[in-house]
Amino acid sequence: MKKNISLEEAQGLVLESCMPIGQEFVDLHDSLGRVLSEDIKAQENIPPFARSPYDGYAFRAEDTFWVNKENPVTLEVIEEVPAGYAPQQKVVQGKAVKILTGAPIPEGADAIIKYEETEANGNFVTIFSSLKSGQDVVPAGEDVAKGEIIASKGTVVSPPILGLMAGLGVTRVPVYRRPRIAIISTGDELLAIDEPLRPGKIRNSNSHTLAAYIRKAGADPIILGTTKDKVEEVGSLILQGLEQADMVITTGGVSVGDYDVLGEAVDYIGAETLYWKIEIKPGSPNLAAVKDGKLILALSGNPAAALVIFHLLGTLYIKKLAGRIDYLNRRTEVILKNDFRKASPRRRFLRGKLIMENGSALMEITGEQGNGVLRSLIDCDVLAEIPEGSEPQMAGTKLTAYLID
Amino acid sequence: MKKNISLEEAQGLVLESCMPIGQEFVDLHDSLGRVLSEDIKAQENIPPFARSPYDGYAFRAEDTFWVNKENPVTLEVIEEVPAGYAPQQKVVQGKAVKILTGAPIPEGADAIIKYEETEANGNFVTIFSSLKSGQDVVPAGEDVAKGEIIASKGTVVSPPILGLMAGLGVTRVPVYRRPRIAIISTGDELLAIDEPLRPGKIRNSNSHTLAAYIRKAGADPIILGTTKDKVEEVGSLILQGLEQADMVITTGGVSVGDYDVLGEAVDYIGAETLYWKIEIKPGSPNLAAVKDGKLILALSGNPAAALVIFHLLGTLYIKKLAGRIDYLNRRTEVILKNDFRKASPRRRFLRGKLIMENGSALMEITGEQGNGVLRSLIDCDVLAEIPEGSEPQMAGTKLTAYLID
Repeated sequence: MKKNISLEEAQGLVLESCMPIGQEFVDLHDSLGRVLSEDIKAQENIPPFARSPYDGYAFRAEDTFWVNKENPVTLEVIEEVPAGYAPQQKVVQGKAVKILTGAPIPEGADAIIKYEETEANGNFVTIFSSLKSGQDVVPAGEDVAKGEIIASKGTVVSPPILGLMAGLGVTRVPVYRRPRIAIISTGDELLAIDEPLRPGKIRNSNSHTLAAYIRKAGADPIILGTTKDKVEEVGSLILQGLEQADMVITTGGVSVGDYDVLGEAVDYIGAETLYWKIEIKPGSPNLAAVKDGKLILALSGNPAAALVIFHLLGTLYIKKLAGRIDYLNRRTEVILKNDFRKASPRRRFLRGKLIMENGSALMEITGEQGNGVLRSLIDCDVLAEIPEGSEPQMAGTKLTAYLID
Repeated sequence: MKKNISLEEAQGLVLESCMPIGQEFVDLHDSLGRVLSEDIKAQENIPPFARSPYDGYAFRAEDTFWVNKENPVTLEVIEEVPAGYAPQQKVVQGKAVKILTGAPIPEGADAIIKYEETEANGNFVTIFSSLKSGQDVVPAGEDVAKGEIIASKGTVVSPPILGLMAGLGVTRVPVYRRPRIAIISTGDELLAIDEPLRPGKIRNSNSHTLAAYIRKAGADPIILGTTKDKVEEVGSLILQGLEQADMVITTGGVSVGDYDVLGEAVDYIGAETLYWKIEIKPGSPNLAAVKDGKLILALSGNPAAALVIFHLLGTLYIKKLAGRIDYLNRRTEVILKNDFRKASPRRRFLRGKLIMENGSALMEITGEQGNGVLRSLIDCDVLAEIPEGSEPQMAGTKLTAYLID
């Protein structure tokens, strides 16, 4: 078992063998937020035909090549084409078709002019300017050309992707199955949320915060409940989680104390421990193990310590399991907006909020940075890295930051 | 009726009388993504008692004031307190309590030292350094102090807010009711998504794109279907929408052509038109009307034109209706990453993607900017403003941009 490894080594160990867990087809409307399991390739053009962007007239551009204000041309209007109808006639020399927004361009015509720029008189229309071939014609395939891939395998379905699939007539969408993630909290001190406080006890918040983040990451949480700090109890609950879910996350019981039992529990059930402890603050005490190809991620009982590792490692695993190609944290440079007045003998991740001001990316520290402080994760959308052995960091310092969601 | 007004005037007209539509209580787990209808005030401290951050010993700091490596102090260990249990004894001079991570600090003790920094011998522990009062004690209320507001009315419930509510024992959460938004598409050219293409016809994508964006904005879409360009048909479908929903959005039939019927349809049903046309590109042809206090927003049939107005006006209305305090688009300065080689005689909004590079906020244009192009809304998370009467904009230009989601 590896011990006290770097975050990057832990990410590598955990993500290496992570694979999507299968696919299914869902109705178009249920595909919002799901991950595509196949490329979506356009089987048609959008729009399917060349069309008019205005209410106007369609005709041959060459009938206007010599035209100007003093020398207008008058064309005979042979048909009117509303949107939704196919032109019945071909446009030849000296002829025009009245055409409405979105209607198909008739055969033979290659230019469009707006009503407002013409003079109509019975079945005739007079044009006062010269037009180029193709002028103001919206070509077939302007939005999407037949054969193009509009969204790749591994992409999350967003509203415009959903809309383009609608336009292409895709009614059933191939997506990856949503992973199920079991959550277990350990600790003799934990109460359920509806229990009154008693001396020495606190309510379990970790299961609920994690369940919400798991849902946001595109997976389905299963809260298995809390268990006492007993190796057999913890082990048997983990086994139950492995049966029901694609991954198990625990909180508590993973540091060095007499009652810290996660290490023993994963041994007890015959899982292979990948590592114990990562060299960062907060969140160092955590452990990853594998049984039957499924990951067990054991996080600290301290909310912030647990969630920082969840954001820098757990979410990545869940997103990859869900089939996403963008499973890594996006990285950016940020400028500290306020001071962090503590030295960092160890590599540290600061909770903050990304703020854009005058074209610069700043980060505001979201509050107290203690291991037990959940509150500074409210409004936190970025974790900024302070290298090992750093002095206090003053406002204006540039840091590398990882976006979380 | 006002005509050709500014975006800001239209926003004012539409948002002025917009109010949340009622509240309800939901289970904690169903509150993720919902909007709080009341402030959430902590009725207790989190944690509820002062506790130990480590496995270690608790004692009186003053017993160590004179201590150093050469002059250690040895204390008698009178009790062991695991997490979840209340200390039974008071700590007095010369005594210590063995304490585990998360356990309450016993009465009388005011300092904690880690196991690793001591020497234990039977019922005695030896300490080799001087500690300050309060050292390494996690105070009660470190995360949340009793009486504090952890999240304000009008805030969207995020995972950490949900977690803090769990910690405070909030099992039923007061939230605003989700607005229902009816969607109608007009146009003789529209097919349902499962119909095969026919000459002159296109599939309706607008209803589906809008439904997805509405869901993301925290409301429930009701797709009422498509209707022909006939005043009575459009009017009666709008009436049906007003009956079932809190707002009606239509697409198509709102420009100047012979078959553009929305203006007549809202008159026909006795709605009051607030304005027709906004002075921007894309999206100028649109209309807002009110009947029985409910908004009817009539958007263009061109996807991009419809969605730009939806993002700069419709979403704002829906978010305010949903009770959100942050209903306006966040604004930022961005630096154009690539050229936009067209003059802009009218005020224009460019679709783009926000990119952070070396601490700067850049915007990459996401593709063709035509009225009919839905594709460039994929990956678009920002709309950058080009003022009226502008020359082409080259890479490096700074623009004001509005964040969309």
